[in-house]
Amino acid sequence: MSTAVSPLAPTNVPDMPAIEGMRLGTAEAGIRYKNRTDVLLAVFDKGTTVAGVFTRSKCPSAPVEWCRAMLKGGKARALVVNSGNANAFTGKTGRSSTALTAKIAADAVGCTEKEIFLASTGVIGEPLDASKFDGVLHSLAQEATEGRFLDAAKAIMTTDTFPKVATAQVRLGKAKVTICGIAKGAGMIAPDMATMLSFIFTDAPIAAPALQALLREGVTDTFNAVTIDGDTSTSDTLLAFATGAAAARGAPKISKASDPQLAAFRKGFMAVLADLAEQVARDGEGARKLVEITVEGATSKNSARRIAMSIANSPLVKTAIAGEDANWGRVVMAVGKAGEPADRDKLSIWFNGIRVAHKGARDPGYDEAKVSAAMKDAKIALKVGLGLGKGKDRVLTCDLTKEYVAINGDYRS
Amino acid sequence: MSTAVSPLAPTNVPDMPAIEGMRLGTAEAGIRYKNRTDVLLAVFDKGTTVAGVFTRSKCPSAPVEWCRAMLKGGKARALVVNSGNANAFTGKTGRSSTALTAKIAADAVGCTEKEIFLASTGVIGEPLDASKFDGVLHSLAQEATEGRFLDAAKAIMTTDTFPKVATAQVRLGKAKVTICGIAKGAGMIAPDMATMLSFIFTDAPIAAPALQALLREGVTDTFNAVTIDGDTSTSDTLLAFATGAAAARGAPKISKASDPQLAAFRKGFMAVLADLAEQVARDGEGARKLVEITVEGATSKNSARRIAMSIANSPLVKTAIAGEDANWGRVVMAVGKAGEPADRDKLSIWFNGIRVAHKGARDPGYDEAKVSAAMKDAKIALKVGLGLGKGKDRVLTCDLTKEYVAINGDYRS
Repeated sequence: MSTAVSPLAPTNVPDMPAIEGMRLGTAEAGIRYKNRTDVLLAVFDKGTTVAGVFTRSKCPSAPVEWCRAMLKGGKARALVVNSGNANAFTGKTGRSSTALTAKIAADAVGCTEKEIFLASTGVIGEPLDASKFDGVLHSLAQEATEGRFLDAAKAIMTTDTFPKVATAQVRLGKAKVTICGIAKGAGMIAPDMATMLSFIFTDAPIAAPALQALLREGVTDTFNAVTIDGDTSTSDTLLAFATGAAAARGAPKISKASDPQLAAFRKGFMAVLADLAEQVARDGEGARKLVEITVEGATSKNSARRIAMSIANSPLVKTAIAGEDANWGRVVMAVGKAGEPADRDKLSIWFNGIRVAHKGARDPGYDEAKVSAAMKDAKIALKVGLGLGKGKDRVLTCDLTKEYVAINGDYRS
Repeated sequence: MSTAVSPLAPTNVPDMPAIEGMRLGTAEAGIRYKNRTDVLLAVFDKGTTVAGVFTRSKCPSAPVEWCRAMLKGGKARALVVNSGNANAFTGKTGRSSTALTAKIAADAVGCTEKEIFLASTGVIGEPLDASKFDGVLHSLAQEATEGRFLDAAKAIMTTDTFPKVATAQVRLGKAKVTICGIAKGAGMIAPDMATMLSFIFTDAPIAAPALQALLREGVTDTFNAVTIDGDTSTSDTLLAFATGAAAARGAPKISKASDPQLAAFRKGFMAVLADLAEQVARDGEGARKLVEITVEGATSKNSARRIAMSIANSPLVKTAIAGEDANWGRVVMAVGKAGEPADRDKLSIWFNGIRVAHKGARDPGYDEAKVSAAMKDAKIALKVGLGLGKGKDRVLTCDLTKEYVAINGDYRS
């Protein structure tokens, strides 16, 4: 496997400001990898609220089940994330392992196990030896410091080729509040089943139900609008933590997501989610092209989403884009198989702004040379006009390359 | 692109007996290819009945729309199939082209246009010049002879690496009746959008509604249980023609699919469909492994089908098999994302008869060397036991190789 950084990696990594009320630490616990950090501990002050959304898989990992159960309390004092072992499909051992990890973390931080959140990514089907956290988490709890988001993003990487961070600072009432997020990408490598993990932190004082509502709202057009290969990890986890420390600086306490005072915060929060989600698409395994698919003129936004996802997950569309081929015939195929309302004779298709098909046939002004040149760009904007209604949506994906097959087809050794 | 025959091609091609009441002819019409046949004409005696099933695409090709309309009559005198141009996404021109082709064929054969059936496969979005059929179809109608099924199968190939034929002879009442089928595979190559086309012929006297019922019944566990990449062509067409010539030899006329006299015929008919469908999977683009996925213990057959298809279409499962990796973690992932009832802790998974996972964890007797050796076989039987109910199903697919990406990602030139 190539270990080169994705050619689609962002060129600027933002400075990540510290967030009051939380500290981060990373360590080498030797779970699987050598000579790299593989454990992240985030420690939160009392009063921190938490929200989460998870994989829709019917076979979720043990940490996903743990978090779902603990979310009911709405309070968090620590987050433990490890890379190298996903603790997925590990049966009863998996549940014992999450319980032990939570116990060790609760002892280290000085809180109840119900305030501990967990995420794991890496090889699946192998028991996770939670005793490796013993000692490590105690030291980390002592050493954890403010800031360090880039280190945190590095500790949770598996097949990612670059760490993913994003930040925003906005006004909440008269106080400046900070949002910082980290993510790891959806990539898989034999025998590792990697995962989309993302953690968002803020010092804004937002009650758990309001934070949950914001997160659900935010995920729809960001993480849920990204697909690499249509496959769904058993471990996908997105958690948001709000320390509330900004209340001491005058930020109003927010109890409802509909509070008009949240306007600027909402915008910043969504921007951080969108930024991280795009970075995940930019780091799809073997990706050489970032592909933005816009569907408009659908009968509804949901219908536009399903058509956009049908295009985004079509191996034939994705391989054509890898080959720099504006193969609109395959786009028609993917529209047709989505099962959503579509009228062949009203379809129009654009690649990077150039209309290649119109009203059910090749565009009369189709210029192969011009289209071919446009397809060489690293970012491909594929737009489909259905001409039926006002429904519109956008999803992000990447191309399907031989490198993807190589990464995922390498013999397990 | 490699033009080598698929390593999964059947080693024995059956002798294809003639069918009374029909004749076949093939010609080089120069639609796109050079030095190969690209037109097939089948001429049927009066009294021939017809049935058909088609792509579920919302953007079907012009010939699919033509056939759907003509099926209402239930009678066929000729079938015209061309390769090289799919007449798909060609707007009004496409409809004029099917109408003109049908007119030329009706003149040549001496029947009405309503008795003409059409199928096209090849490049999409390019107008099909139906005038190329003029003259060609007249000669073919004269020259068409009995038998010649292998030639017919060759004329409809696009990216297929071998012609696909299957046959069965069974008793209907006291008469021997014959079933012959040909197919072309679901493969796509830039800018050609290829297609699954299959045509089944018999001399059994079966009324159109009964033939239609048999075909719908037969397709469920054969052609509809095969997937190459989850993509659905705009042109998929399966037509069955029954000349009824065996009535003169004493075969009873069948008006209902539920007629108990059909027992042997039904078995032979299904076997021909199953054989052709398997050949399509064996000729998937870039395929190196034939993969049979069996799901049992599901809550219903439909649920088992959806889980089997989720596994069969998972790029991560398919690349793992290409890499000869018994990556059951990815199978769990694909089960989980299907959205069907599944209990992680009751799951068992077998590769070529070797149980690798049991009750939600790696099988205690897991032997890497043994499993690795089994994964080198050209045929991989992947079985999933859900442990929930009695629902069972089986689908066929192939692996996802770099060759698939190469074939479909080659720059359009």
